[in-house]
Amino acid sequence: MTYVLHYAPDNASLIVRLALEHRGLPYRTALVDRAARAQDSAAYRRLNPNGLIPVLETPQGPLFETAAILLWLNDTHGGLGPDPDAPGRGAFLKWLFYLSNTTHALFRQLFYTHRYIGADHVAALRDGLARQIARSFATLDTLADDPAAWPGTDMPGALDFYLSALLRWSALYPRDWDRAWFALSDYPALHDLCTRIEALPCTAVLQRAEGLGDTPFTAPQPPNPPEGSAT
Amino acid sequence: MTYVLHYAPDNASLIVRLALEHRGLPYRTALVDRAARAQDSAAYRRLNPNGLIPVLETPQGPLFETAAILLWLNDTHGGLGPDPDAPGRGAFLKWLFYLSNTTHALFRQLFYTHRYIGADHVAALRDGLARQIARSFATLDTLADDPAAWPGTDMPGALDFYLSALLRWSALYPRDWDRAWFALSDYPALHDLCTRIEALPCTAVLQRAEGLGDTPFTAPQPPNPPEGSAT
Repeated sequence: MTYVLHYAPDNASLIVRLALEHRGLPYRTALVDRAARAQDSAAYRRLNPNGLIPVLETPQGPLFETAAILLWLNDTHGGLGPDPDAPGRGAFLKWLFYLSNTTHALFRQLFYTHRYIGADHVAALRDGLARQIARSFATLDTLADDPAAWPGTDMPGALDFYLSALLRWSALYPRDWDRAWFALSDYPALHDLCTRIEALPCTAVLQRAEGLGDTPFTAPQPPNPPEGSAT
Repeated sequence: MTYVLHYAPDNASLIVRLALEHRGLPYRTALVDRAARAQDSAAYRRLNPNGLIPVLETPQGPLFETAAILLWLNDTHGGLGPDPDAPGRGAFLKWLFYLSNTTHALFRQLFYTHRYIGADHVAALRDGLARQIARSFATLDTLADDPAAWPGTDMPGALDFYLSALLRWSALYPRDWDRAWFALSDYPALHDLCTRIEALPCTAVLQRAEGLGDTPFTAPQPPNPPEGSAT
């Protein structure tokens, strides 16, 4: 079957799309028009009651949660991480959940700070979140060049696509904020990871399809997508 | 092999321990002495660099992240959710990641608010986090009695143990805070879930082992554990 990826440019759908392209899996895209807040529409909430992007329509119904989709694709098609009975499976799962529930969760809050605190305190909360994100990157930097700790050094997979996108967003979002807290060069192993992912054919496809620019992971610029908008 | 669960009473280790007991898997516990901040010790950080509880020592090394451990146990031993090739796997994964990266992540922040914002604004941030947790429970309440949406209604598993513990914590923590925002009776399907989980033999074991009291999920009281402390 052809999967349907509900996406917006440079949203978390980017991570799933890298995985789909990398594995050569058949899919088509359906744009979620963020400018019209289509992610809050009744039709979209029937796919994902949480109104978040992405959704992947599959024979098992609409899947959501970026990491759940990555894991389901890996376990269905292989090639994005260790198989369920492989020795590296435990390490893969613990870091996949960590990226999802710590690093990515911090970003989600950073992008929607106003849901958590009044306007007067948004800047203070953003600073606190950025400190925790930087701490998370420092942890990840100590292991991203260790194949035993981080399954993916010898084969790009779900963890690598996920982390590359989070690093990209650090340099770009929220747009109305000083991002002096982040410099990829502070994290040598993560910089190497971005260099590797940037050289992959799947990244070239995404650069064209979502207007991600010449150096989407090592030196990101705001996207210039052919359709839709990132925010 | 006998697993080793590094735990503290009424911490997230509770969720893994319910699963281990429910499946009758061989394990022993190793107390993490929170009163001495043992979770921050060099020895513990060698097991989990993030200094969080639980860790499960396995033949694949030390695993952490509650949901990763649950999923790994399911895929290794079965009986905690759909197998990797089962039709309900996608739904299981999307809600397992959601519990981990949304509901549980909000609690982690609620318990460590001071890492994110200055003391003057802790109360405001807690209120914002509580609103989002309540919203998450409302979403979960609409599906926890629908076997097609929530794999577990006919068989308690990873999702059910996870959600029951989060609901318990809503009534108890942080200790120095008014919890008027939460009433289990606002969520009929989640109340039913707590009633079902409370009646299981694995819960009786945890009530004794961690001093969880007579009604640990439907009407929680602060724990009175035989060793260690919850905070």
